[in-house]
Amino acid sequence: MQVSEAIRLKRAVRKFQDKPLPDEIVRAILNAGRRSQSSKNNQAWQFIAIRDKEILKVLSQCGEWAGHIAGAALCVAILTPEPTAKFQTMFDAGQAAAFMQLAAWELGVGSCPASIYEAEKAREILKFPAEWHLRIALSFGIPLDEGKLSAPLKKGGRLSLDEVVHWEKW
Amino acid sequence: MQVSEAIRLKRAVRKFQDKPLPDEIVRAILNAGRRSQSSKNNQAWQFIAIRDKEILKVLSQCGEWAGHIAGAALCVAILTPEPTAKFQTMFDAGQAAAFMQLAAWELGVGSCPASIYEAEKAREILKFPAEWHLRIALSFGIPLDEGKLSAPLKKGGRLSLDEVVHWEKW
Repeated sequence: MQVSEAIRLKRAVRKFQDKPLPDEIVRAILNAGRRSQSSKNNQAWQFIAIRDKEILKVLSQCGEWAGHIAGAALCVAILTPEPTAKFQTMFDAGQAAAFMQLAAWELGVGSCPASIYEAEKAREILKFPAEWHLRIALSFGIPLDEGKLSAPLKKGGRLSLDEVVHWEKW
Repeated sequence: MQVSEAIRLKRAVRKFQDKPLPDEIVRAILNAGRRSQSSKNNQAWQFIAIRDKEILKVLSQCGEWAGHIAGAALCVAILTPEPTAKFQTMFDAGQAAAFMQLAAWELGVGSCPASIYEAEKAREILKFPAEWHLRIALSFGIPLDEGKLSAPLKKGGRLSLDEVVHWEKW
């Protein structure tokens, strides 16, 4: 799948088939995140790849809109240093997340980011050390509705180019 | 270009040919950013697309490592709401930046993010209102060394999968 096509068609998928992802797809997704750009090549991230149904379920209760994690075939928790210390930290996490989601989409795998508001509850479950923090986790899986992978663009889903872009100055 | 290939080959480009980018490429890059995922579909971003050499030069002086902006054919300033108020803000900016950079790469256009440390100086130049903030701007252009677009992977540029990934728990 071409980059432009993936970007054009990619949409959030929150409902997944109850079907595991092959190991090579899981690794391709994680590798895409690992290869992503980061500020000064700091790679200030660690990923926890979760397929255990019980852990997925508990993690899905760590954010008001994180319920989709429970039904995911794979969740990637993106750990970062303290998120507010540097503005690059969450920016770089976002770049890694986008790479993982586009790589997944090409392989027929849908995804959606979830905000983790109950960060300390998540820490208890996943046992990561104090210097790492979890704010965003990504759900992955084969879309329950596979038609989503090639569905036409919804009208009105995004601001128009004119609403978003200024030329030369504001 | 396939998504996986773009992700595998994409690297930072900071030196560009002194050659303008066609309008359709500029629009394709901006559209990729606009289409990117955002928390609750907030699309909490505005982009300033800059091609004016004088503005590029002054903006390149707003960050210690932002010098590459001066030689860019296009700079996209990613404006966000106050970056520390929500952790999703810079995460979403990062997702949009990744989409723009991968879309550009497929079109033979290199890029690099620059941190804008002198945010108020940037505001004076670009005239954006108080509720918007600029922390990251992206340089785009045809790589001075076009070989960069298909160069083999450098060894040691990234942490290995084993250094980055934990399985199920930390």
